[in-house]
Parts: sequence; structure tokens; C-alpha cells
Amino acid sequence: MRALFTDFYQLSMMQGYFFSKPKEVAVFDMYFRKAPSGGAYAILCGINEVIEYIQELKFSPDDIAYLKKSGYFKDEFLEYLKSFKFSGEIYAIDEGSIVFAHEPLIRVRANILEAQLIETAILNTVNFQTLIATKASRVCESAKNASVMEFGLRRAQGRSAGLYGAKAAFVGGCIGTSNVEAAAKFNLPALGTHSHSWVQSFDSELESFRAYAKMYPNATLLLVDTYDVLNSGLPNAITVFKELRDKGHEPLGIRIDSGDLEYLTKEARKMLDDAGFKDAKITASNDLDEYAIEHLYQSGAKIDSYGVGTKLITSQDSPSLGGVYKLSGVERNSKVEPKIKISNDPRKINNPGLKQVFRFYDKDTHKALADVICLDGESFENLESLEIFHPLYTYKRYKLQNFYTKKLLKPLFENGKFVGEKKSVKDIAQTTKSEKQSMWSEYLRNVKPPTYKVDLSQKLWDIRENLLTKHRS
Amino acid sequence: MRALFTDFYQLSMMQGYFFSKPKEVAVFDMYFRKAPSGGAYAILCGINEVIEYIQELKFSPDDIAYLKKSGYFKDEFLEYLKSFKFSGEIYAIDEGSIVFAHEPLIRVRANILEAQLIETAILNTVNFQTLIATKASRVCESAKNASVMEFGLRRAQGRSAGLYGAKAAFVGGCIGTSNVEAAAKFNLPALGTHSHSWVQSFDSELESFRAYAKMYPNATLLLVDTYDVLNSGLPNAITVFKELRDKGHEPLGIRIDSGDLEYLTKEARKMLDDAGFKDAKITASNDLDEYAIEHLYQSGAKIDSYGVGTKLITSQDSPSLGGVYKLSGVERNSKVEPKIKISNDPRKINNPGLKQVFRFYDKDTHKALADVICLDGESFENLESLEIFHPLYTYKRYKLQNFYTKKLLKPLFENGKFVGEKKSVKDIAQTTKSEKQSMWSEYLRNVKPPTYKVDLSQKLWDIRENLLTKHRS
Repeated sequence: MRALFTDFYQLSMMQGYFFSKPKEVAVFDMYFRKAPSGGAYAILCGINEVIEYIQELKFSPDDIAYLKKSGYFKDEFLEYLKSFKFSGEIYAIDEGSIVFAHEPLIRVRANILEAQLIETAILNTVNFQTLIATKASRVCESAKNASVMEFGLRRAQGRSAGLYGAKAAFVGGCIGTSNVEAAAKFNLPALGTHSHSWVQSFDSELESFRAYAKMYPNATLLLVDTYDVLNSGLPNAITVFKELRDKGHEPLGIRIDSGDLEYLTKEARKMLDDAGFKDAKITASNDLDEYAIEHLYQSGAKIDSYGVGTKLITSQDSPSLGGVYKLSGVERNSKVEPKIKISNDPRKINNPGLKQVFRFYDKDTHKALADVICLDGESFENLESLEIFHPLYTYKRYKLQNFYTKKLLKPLFENGKFVGEKKSVKDIAQTTKSEKQSMWSEYLRNVKPPTYKVDLSQKLWDIRENLLTKHRS
Repeated sequence: MRALFTDFYQLSMMQGYFFSKPKEVAVFDMYFRKAPSGGAYAILCGINEVIEYIQELKFSPDDIAYLKKSGYFKDEFLEYLKSFKFSGEIYAIDEGSIVFAHEPLIRVRANILEAQLIETAILNTVNFQTLIATKASRVCESAKNASVMEFGLRRAQGRSAGLYGAKAAFVGGCIGTSNVEAAAKFNLPALGTHSHSWVQSFDSELESFRAYAKMYPNATLLLVDTYDVLNSGLPNAITVFKELRDKGHEPLGIRIDSGDLEYLTKEARKMLDDAGFKDAKITASNDLDEYAIEHLYQSGAKIDSYGVGTKLITSQDSPSLGGVYKLSGVERNSKVEPKIKISNDPRKINNPGLKQVFRFYDKDTHKALADVICLDGESFENLESLEIFHPLYTYKRYKLQNFYTKKLLKPLFENGKFVGEKKSVKDIAQTTKSEKQSMWSEYLRNVKPPTYKVDLSQKLWDIRENLLTKHRS
């Protein structure tokens, strides 16, 4: 039912186009207007799944039968759907890239029936994965050198949220996931040891720890808060760690999942050190997010790794990315005629036309300076300097010098054929890592970061102004 | 990969149990500690998908190969997994029921390996669907007699969130969904007309409206805010509505998706009425939730139906239900020995033992009075009266009289065999409707509702106290 993974109005519009202007070619841009969680940036994620969706997109006989039964669609149109496939052009920014508000992340130029159908799946896929990759990046930034593991499956918004959320979390910087399906599908480290029920099911905590250490002598990480961390969990864990060492094994460490993590981890560190287990690691979990982790870090809590669940996999404080997919032009005589949608809110007016995005880098530091959205075909490579300006507050101007540029939108599909490159999730995570290195750290700050400059080229700005003037009259 | 839809620690514990106590039988309860969005209740949803999961649960050769490759699992255990199937007992409350914090919604009594494996999928499924059904119920409560359509797929947290979220929204009271896949799978009304891009793609708004009306003369609902609602959208819509009427068709109405919905819908109502289209409906959308709808209703906005997207499908203000799955007992000589997990937070201590939940109804009004969690086997049917008390603040006492009771937990699986009843989504929605009628309206209030009484039977309370005392010493 992959073709039915769409909104009903896409199909009613398709039928409308089919009978009114079946040959129309349109340009649509996918972009968001605001980065999640009050941050300055987002990590683009979900492009691989967009590729798969486009490649596999077709209407099965069952899909056609369902649509026919609805009584809403004419036979001629259903006949067209039977042999439907995407035959247009798609450009996208590399998955794992750092992206900003208003930049076209995906650009579709295709027959309007095709371009319209794919809107919903593209938005669903890219909105969610980008949201979670961004959240993971924020959490990992706050954890500094401590590692972060994703284990939110039980609170994820459904199975695919858990599956692709785990992928996105890895792209954003997590070291692995508790989700076995995700680990298998994306070749990620699967992590996890035991829960409270393991401890409860034995007659005593000590007995449960012994049984675990016996089973996993080289991977003994014990959850110490089923009854009482300092008075029961840790003394029992240390007893078992000593028994392990006597048999020639070193324990991995402990996990604390409740209580005051600053106090408990400081005490636990002392107890472990005093008992001779300086290398035993302390893992902390319990409803954590980037803000809680930041405070734990500042307070000197002794935490080597974090398990982060609910608040990461749902992006709790900002559980949706409002990515949109807007018509920006239609073809007339093989040329793209720019189109605009007007709104009282000036930030909601779309950028018309067939566009490209350039990132400007400083030649010496190789840090990103600004992005410019421009018309397709514009180039800035041979300029000595470029004065850019804020698209709404045009008095805000900035002169770029000593730069080189990179074109961000790259071809994925041409004439319906995949012409891009599909990277492994580990490679995508690597892209994110180097993208973050190309950014000044201010922009990666979780709280009140500065705004990264994303301006319009003069040519694009002029077209936009002209269309606004035209619609005013 | 259905069997891998789990957390890695379930598998590491399973292997641990397999080699330390493979015959252990345990009891687990699924429950939540706090209803979402500050409400008093939740709508239980997802039971059908739990049934399907249990019925189809097995490890494929690929799953086994993946686990073997990890190097973490021994051959003897992998051999066991090859023929794994669930062979235990599951009780659950009827899907669509109104449920409250701390009540066991699902009770599993099974070999501990089996009971442990299924934790993650049960939580993922029931947490999400219950969350969205509850949110939808809240939104529909605020909409009073206006209808609510779900159309959040593009912002849902992945494809299955959109799919099962649409189901849950229908259970909670929505009249249909934009999600074609969900409509097809669950036999729900698929709804939707056209977007701004339809309007933009034509040379003028009027032309676009005419084309839509030509295609759908008996289902003409026009989106009027692409350029300017009152000065362009409505005049053009009315022109087309008149042309339609001249040809013998009546329009459905208009949709407004931006701007001030109170002002615009009042003005639109006047313009439509004055033009002779008193039956044309006004649909409103734009980032709505139960709070915004409540205010629109209070302000007298002229809205016949709402389209609700992002904030419903993600339960934006409360994007996770913290449902847990806790070990409450292990079998010793065919009897369940109660087990407890202790926490500093008294609301986090689980209720031990094999339990049942009763709802007490008033014999005259048939309204629910209170719920009592008790030990399996207890009965209250022939009592004249019953004094119930708050489990933590035991001075809070209440005398139930003139009541009859219903047992909420019912058998779904016995010896691994499905013995329950699987209802259609429409029937589940019907259950929700009658459940809501059995509740005093105070409990359904969205903001600051009173707490519905969920108390423990004296027997259960005694067991809990005894275990706490035992662990203190």
C-alpha cells in the first residue's frame, strides 16, 4: 500500500489535474520555517527512505480496487494510476548535512500529478527523521565526551518511529540503540543489559547479579536501583565485581535509572573507586534530555554514558518539525514560471522559482560563513566579495570575502532514474560529524544560539518582490 | 523482523533466564502512572495490534542469523528461539475503554522468557495508540457538535504513527482521516479536497475554483486563503458556487487554513449567507488543538468542522504516554508470589500480585462511581456497601452504595491461544462513545478535571504494605 501512504486530497487533486491539465510540470520545494527546540540548525535526515519510496512507488491492484470502490475516481484516471511511476527530477541536500530554515532541502520538478502525490510521504519521512537527528545532536552536544545510547522504543510513536528514530539518533551522534530491529536493519550497535524485572524475579538482588555475571562475565553491567542504590545495589554489585575479578574478568560497570543522579553517581564513583574498580563505568538514565544532561555535566556528576529514551525518540519539547512542500513554479515553454503563496506572516511567503542553495566557507578557517538561496544557474565562485542582506530586514547587510562555496542541492533523480548516491547510516553519521566541525560552535549551542545567515540572492529577491507587487494590484 | 521489534536487553535477559531458570512463570502488568495532557482519563487503544503481534510472533531464519552473527548468543538458546512462540496467558481491558492511572490494562502470565520478550512491542503499541485516542477524545470534546477530521500524516512521527494514529483518532471521536492507507486498512472515511498548490498552479484563483467545481460538482469544498480570504477567496468561491447552483448542484462549502479564524469565519458566514448559501459549511484548520478549539467555540466562531493535524497526531503538548510493564509476581507451586519494585516516589511503587480491576456503577444513573484494583478472585457483587480508601492517603475514604460492578480485565490469550474478540475500528469507536456516556462529564473535562477514584482492595493493600515492610528490614 505504499502508494496509499498519502493524503486523500493528493488523489483528488491528481484526478483534477488529470482531466484539466495532465501535461503540467511543476516545481515544489520541501523546507521548514523554524529549527526544532529553539536551536539554530537541523540535521537533515530521511533522504535514503525518500529514495526508496520513489523507487518503489506504484499502485498495486489492491490499491486500485480500493480507490475504485470509493466511487470517487473515474476509470480513465484509475487506468492511468495502474502504470503510474515517478518520471521526474528530484534534487536534495546530502543526508546528514546541517541545514537551516527556509532552505529548499528537496526540490521536485515533475509532472504535477507525480509531484503532488509524493508530497505527504516526503514530508512524513523527512520531518520526523530530521527532527530526531537534530534532537540527538543536541543531546550529544550536551553530553560532551560521555556517550549517548538511544533506548526510547517503548515510548516511540509507533514501530516505524522507533525504527527510523533509532537511525536518526545514530546520525545525530548516538553510539547505538536498544532497538534490535533498527540495529539489524541499519547495521548499528545493539545495546542493553537487564531491567528491574530481572532483579525482582530472583529471590534476592545479590542472587540476580550473580546470575547475570555468570551469564555475561565479560559484559557485566548491573542495574543497581531496584531496591536502594547505595545501601543495596552498589554493595551487591561490588561483591559480584570482586567475585568476577577473582575469576579473571573485569566488570563493565553499573547503571542508575532513578533518584538524584548527581548525588548518586558521585557516591557510586567513590564506592567503586574505593573498592578498586576505577575502570567500572557509570551509566545514567531516567527521563533525560539535553537540558538535564547539561545540568548534570555542570554539576560534576560522575557519568560515563547516558541512556536516553522518551525525550529523544519523541523530541518531547518540540515533537514535530513543520516542514512544508510548496509549489514554487510551473513550466511554461520549458521555462519555470515562478509562483508565490501570500500570507499575512511575511516568514510564511514562499521563495518562488527553481532554486539552488550555496554555502559560503572561509578560505582560512574552513568554517561556514552564510548560506545563500538563489536561482538555479547562479554562481558566486569567482567573486572577490559579495554583499548579502536579510530577506525581510534589508538594511541588515554583510560583506562576504575570502570565501569558497559549495552547492548544496544535488541531483537524486533525473527522468525518474536514480542518479544519486545512497550512503550507509554510518557514513551519514560521518557526514554529520564533519558538518558540525565546519560550523562555529555558537550555532550548535542548545539554548539561545545566534541566527545563522540564510539570505536570498539579489535576483531571487527581485522576483519575489515583483510577484508580491503584482498580487497587491 | 517482527521478533526483533524489541529491546536488546529483552534478548540478553531471555538468554540469562534460559540458562538459569528456563521454567519460571512470571506475571507482568502494563499500566501508566499519569493520564496525558493533564486530563483525568485515557482511552485504551492498540489492543487489536497487540493481538496480531502475539499471533504472528516468531523468529525468522534471518532474525536468528542476525543474532548469531552478533556473537552474543549461544547456539542452544538460538535453537530455542527457532521454535519460539507465545504460549502463555494475556488479559486485557476492552479496547476503546476509558481507563485510569495505575490500573493494569494488560496482564501477562507466562514463562518469563516469553513475557519479557513482548514487553517492548506491547508498550510501543499501546502507549502510542492510547495517547492519540486520548488526544482525539479531548479535541472532539472541545469541538462540541462540530466534527473533527484527522489530517496530520505529514507531521506524524513516521508512517506507522500516521497509520495507527489515524485509527486511534477515529477511536477517540474523529469522523475520518486524510490518510488513505489508514482509511483503506481500517475502513474509515477518507477525507480531503485540495491544497494551496492547486490554486497556485492555475493562472488565477477563480480559474482554479472553476476547474475544481467542474471535476467535483457535488463535492465542491474550496480552500479560500491562498491569496486573501475576504477580498479574493470568498468572492471567487461565491461566484463559482452560483455557477454550480445554476447547473443544479449545491456546494459543500469552504475551508480557511490561516489568519484569525474567529474573525474570518464570522465574516465568511455573513458573506455566504448573504449570497444565499446558508447550507455551505465552513471548515477551519491551522495548528489547532483542544485549547484553540475551546476558545474558538467560546468566541462564537462560525465553524462547522475542524481539520486537526500536527497537534493531534503527535499529541504535541504531551507526546508520550509513560506506560510501563512491571513484574508483579512469579509462580511458586502454581501460585503467584507477589513481587514489588521500591522507589523513593511512592506513586512509582508497583502493585504486587495477580490482579483484576472492577468498575463500580450507580444502579440508578448507570454512571461510573470508582474503580477498585484487587487480587484476582476477589468479588464485590453481593455487598450492600463498600468503603474504599485512597492507597496512599488512607484517611480519604468513600462509601460505595447502590452499585453494580463490571470486571474490566478479560481473557485475550490462554495457553497461547487467542480466546478474545477482535472488534472492527468502528466498533471500538462505538465502545469509546458509550464509555464516555457512562462517565460524569467532570472527568472528561480537558483542563483541571477532578481525580477519578482508583483504589486498592484491602487485601491488595495489605500485601503491598507487607512487602514494603519486609524490604525495609
